[in-house]
Amino acid sequence: MYDVVIIGGGPAGLTAGIYARRAMLNTLLVEKLGLGGQIALIELVENYPGLSRIKGSSMVQQLEEHVKEIGLDVSFVEVERIEDAGDHKRVHTTDGVLETRCAIVASGASPARLGVRGEAEYIGRGVSYCATCDGFFFRDRDVVVVGGGNTAIAEALFLTNMVRKIYVVHRRDALRAEKILQERAFKNEKIEFVWNSVLEEIKGEQIVNMVIVRNVNSGEPLEIPAEGVFIFVGLEPKTGFIECEKDERGFIITDANLATSMNGVFAAGDCRDTPLRQIATAVGDGALAANSVVKYLEE
Amino acid sequence: MYDVVIIGGGPAGLTAGIYARRAMLNTLLVEKLGLGGQIALIELVENYPGLSRIKGSSMVQQLEEHVKEIGLDVSFVEVERIEDAGDHKRVHTTDGVLETRCAIVASGASPARLGVRGEAEYIGRGVSYCATCDGFFFRDRDVVVVGGGNTAIAEALFLTNMVRKIYVVHRRDALRAEKILQERAFKNEKIEFVWNSVLEEIKGEQIVNMVIVRNVNSGEPLEIPAEGVFIFVGLEPKTGFIECEKDERGFIITDANLATSMNGVFAAGDCRDTPLRQIATAVGDGALAANSVVKYLEE
Repeated sequence: MYDVVIIGGGPAGLTAGIYARRAMLNTLLVEKLGLGGQIALIELVENYPGLSRIKGSSMVQQLEEHVKEIGLDVSFVEVERIEDAGDHKRVHTTDGVLETRCAIVASGASPARLGVRGEAEYIGRGVSYCATCDGFFFRDRDVVVVGGGNTAIAEALFLTNMVRKIYVVHRRDALRAEKILQERAFKNEKIEFVWNSVLEEIKGEQIVNMVIVRNVNSGEPLEIPAEGVFIFVGLEPKTGFIECEKDERGFIITDANLATSMNGVFAAGDCRDTPLRQIATAVGDGALAANSVVKYLEE
Repeated sequence: MYDVVIIGGGPAGLTAGIYARRAMLNTLLVEKLGLGGQIALIELVENYPGLSRIKGSSMVQQLEEHVKEIGLDVSFVEVERIEDAGDHKRVHTTDGVLETRCAIVASGASPARLGVRGEAEYIGRGVSYCATCDGFFFRDRDVVVVGGGNTAIAEALFLTNMVRKIYVVHRRDALRAEKILQERAFKNEKIEFVWNSVLEEIKGEQIVNMVIVRNVNSGEPLEIPAEGVFIFVGLEPKTGFIECEKDERGFIITDANLATSMNGVFAAGDCRDTPLRQIATAVGDGALAANSVVKYLEE
């Protein structure tokens, strides 16, 4: 019987692990893929206080060392369901059932799909949700980036290091991204903005060769010849394995101590209904969730 | 006219500064003393994710470099009052008035005083609220530490490096500190616990030479010969300069976006009514407060 099982190895889960271990709780962190969460997908982290301009991969390494030093146990399995057994919980995984008194859900969120024709068909053959992962395959090619937020513009800027030209397709006539990123993008000659436009279809043969967008004001379609389409239009929470109170998009609703509606289960980071999803806010959540588990177990 | 004036240069304020600058806001951070806030008083930071076991002074340096890189303006003045002028605010300082559209209060908290006889009299002559600052003066002497939380035990452990003996006086029969710190303290031969006891009086001549404590169960007094008294019994918010909704102890009440009851003014970190006061939670607050300012200014 664990004191706490932490689900997810991104910054929120790892921080919860550090704090739970320092509280000497019998702790297990479970992660489906690799540690670091979305940090592993970021080229450069510039806004985590104290680590200015650190590569995402280096930051993941430093976090890994930190949890190793503190002796956090990590198991690489996928969680299928959290069962509320009253005084404790059963965490059903692809490798059996874990019994635990508390759980912290820090499962994060994944890039949202657009749901347009050709999108699912061409994933891995031109359609991507991660420039850091796949940008290299498109060197000296033309690509389309969909979105106007921080992720979209940061990823577009990263792609300028390798691709020939980037069309940023955005449904509005202004970006939501941080001003510092906007300024860099506007200055970059490789980036062309296609304003007030939505992606309508992705076409190709073996691989993508054409993207069709439509102007939302005029209704006019536009064909953009491109071999890559990078889609950054928001996040979908990975919360299907827990039945608790969520918002309409599936983000977990918590109270001020990060308790969910399932007694003894707390949530931290991107998977919860929070006004901002950053590494800085995720580590704050992780510390608080672990602290709330400590208090819960004391009572 | 500034977009935002950030009050306080601890981790919450510095993070708010990083985010505000990245949003290209016309930003000024004001700080009374030095940057780093309470981190500057910590010997070793062990629970800030990504920087395992870093000296407090080194972490302050890294934060300073980070805000320097991003071009954050810092002014070393003390804030006396925030005046709500409707569409903007006037921040009254010891060096004149700053006009700003928004403010972020990240002024932190300072160690609480016990309010016992001799305490005020012997500050700087045996009474201290910071082992990192003053521990060196007590090498090979006997000292008393008052408190049972994280700070008290971490500071007592730090003092074992220099003093001869430490009496930890705690009003209960168990510590509140993290288990990992408790275990270290119980193992350390220099530390003796005086349970169920409160400090009653601090005596001395030129400097402290005696501490009188009283057992809360038996009512019996106990004289402890000691030349130093380190007091770690909680925090008092530094929020006297702003008139807004606060809890009974003076911590600022905020909503989920860290807005205070004064329109356009946000609060972050230790000065607000938060369930946990850590560097990790302060940086989360700083990022969120700056993000809320950006949204406020857009509207």
